[in-house]
Amino acid sequence: MFIDNLIDTIKEKKNPSVVGLDPRIEYVPRFIREKAFSLYGENLKGACESILEFNKRIIDAVYDIVPAVKLQVAYYEMYGLYGLTVFMETIKYAKEKGLLVIADGKRNDIGSTAEAYSSAFLGRTGISCNKSETVLDVDALTVNPFLGYDGVKPFIEDCQKYGKGVFILVKTSNKSSGQIQDLLTYHGKSIYEILAEYVEDWGKNLVGKYGYSSVGAVVGATYPNQAKVLRNIMKHAYILVPGYGAQGGTARDAAHSFGRDGLGAIVNASRSIMCAYQSDTWNSTYCEERFAEAARAEAIKMRDEINAATGGY
Amino acid sequence: MFIDNLIDTIKEKKNPSVVGLDPRIEYVPRFIREKAFSLYGENLKGACESILEFNKRIIDAVYDIVPAVKLQVAYYEMYGLYGLTVFMETIKYAKEKGLLVIADGKRNDIGSTAEAYSSAFLGRTGISCNKSETVLDVDALTVNPFLGYDGVKPFIEDCQKYGKGVFILVKTSNKSSGQIQDLLTYHGKSIYEILAEYVEDWGKNLVGKYGYSSVGAVVGATYPNQAKVLRNIMKHAYILVPGYGAQGGTARDAAHSFGRDGLGAIVNASRSIMCAYQSDTWNSTYCEERFAEAARAEAIKMRDEINAATGGY
Repeated sequence: MFIDNLIDTIKEKKNPSVVGLDPRIEYVPRFIREKAFSLYGENLKGACESILEFNKRIIDAVYDIVPAVKLQVAYYEMYGLYGLTVFMETIKYAKEKGLLVIADGKRNDIGSTAEAYSSAFLGRTGISCNKSETVLDVDALTVNPFLGYDGVKPFIEDCQKYGKGVFILVKTSNKSSGQIQDLLTYHGKSIYEILAEYVEDWGKNLVGKYGYSSVGAVVGATYPNQAKVLRNIMKHAYILVPGYGAQGGTARDAAHSFGRDGLGAIVNASRSIMCAYQSDTWNSTYCEERFAEAARAEAIKMRDEINAATGGY
Repeated sequence: MFIDNLIDTIKEKKNPSVVGLDPRIEYVPRFIREKAFSLYGENLKGACESILEFNKRIIDAVYDIVPAVKLQVAYYEMYGLYGLTVFMETIKYAKEKGLLVIADGKRNDIGSTAEAYSSAFLGRTGISCNKSETVLDVDALTVNPFLGYDGVKPFIEDCQKYGKGVFILVKTSNKSSGQIQDLLTYHGKSIYEILAEYVEDWGKNLVGKYGYSSVGAVVGATYPNQAKVLRNIMKHAYILVPGYGAQGGTARDAAHSFGRDGLGAIVNASRSIMCAYQSDTWNSTYCEERFAEAARAEAIKMRDEINAATGGY
């Protein structure tokens, strides 16, 4: 099952961090972009070829030290058919390198439609009564719970059937997340606390050998106080922590999402790793051509900072 | 701007209803499926070729009587690259026939990522500092507001820049929508009421000549009592009403989302129109080969029922 694979891989690599592959075109080093544009034209295809090259070299640089990559679907969807191709090629490449793949799609809809999304990402798409095919086939998907349980159930059923995972949005990392998620209900609980109770309940049949469920949650590193409360409500949910690095969350902030067992959370960083070669920390050591080494150095630094903050490994 | 185009087209066609193109493979008449499978194989491509043929014939049958079609993105995404191709081909075909196109994607994310989604659906995707391309280029997109304003703002900015529209989820049509949307907050307002106030505020700079905004809302036909309240809070929001027909909502239910001016809402039906040829109402009149005529008959029936219930036209 997903959650046991994830934890086994985290333990093996002694690293609870995840590299986010959210490749905006301006993150791609100029020499890669220029090469792709000269080969394929300055168009969607050229942009996508450069992104695929960039992704592969980032994966090459980190696959032996991180357990998983997280692909933000929007950054591929924005390039249409070429983008979807790069998304699928990146998933394939990451899996070949032994990485788990999380798609950050925040998909959501009413039950019958959520089934279709789940077929795309986690399950199989039916062709006829006796034929079906996998389509994107990632290991886990982020899901938006705004429609309540019947929009989440098809994903959870596919987790059970196909050994996959979901991370359900509970408290997102952005500034305005509180406009809905922090609202206090009549009985004194906030929306994010109520969601945490739902997530804990929804995942109860998917708890693995480490006591964690394949139904996880998303809680932003930018809200450490809420994270403490949420860790406590969701005893069995693995927490995917975005917002580390470029968004302002620190290792100490992220540490609140971990349990006393040193497990319980994975921390994602995207921009700070992909663009490490542009950062003040690394740009004097690594020139643009050595962007992948900078990404690796930053990924190691992140691993060590998180392990220091959580007391892990 | 989107909202004025939409209302002009509704007035011209005397029809505030929308045909949903949510083509599950089992909706496609067998003779179309079998032809496609024999030409392209019983695989994702074969399924998608049959869906494209089906969509085009439904569009041919209704384009002169309805103002818009709504494509549910999940039903295309589940077929991967072939599905995205059919999605794009269907959009192109519908536009050629003079229809407005709404993508029902319920996209959502933090600001920087919402920008990427908006580039895909409403705006333009940047290739380099001086080049960008349109990708899906629909007229309007449904958006999930769970992350608050900074996740919605990029879509609204593109509405302004490119003359597009959004419909923001306020009260969805599914059974469990109340688990979050109906929660009563500390000050006695429900989440859906608070969202309605946000939507009204977020759309205030995009109000067109009829007094409605290009920032609209989604309110399910299955919740008529809530619709009355919401219509009143969101004086300027056009309401996209799902849940009519197969989901159980009636024309009288949907009527609560309309204003006294007979405007203010569009009602979507998907399954009841696409599968009209299988329904008790039409299957004795139209055989499977005449599925498009059945769809047209059902679309006319729906138009007339809604106009009778709203007193429109």
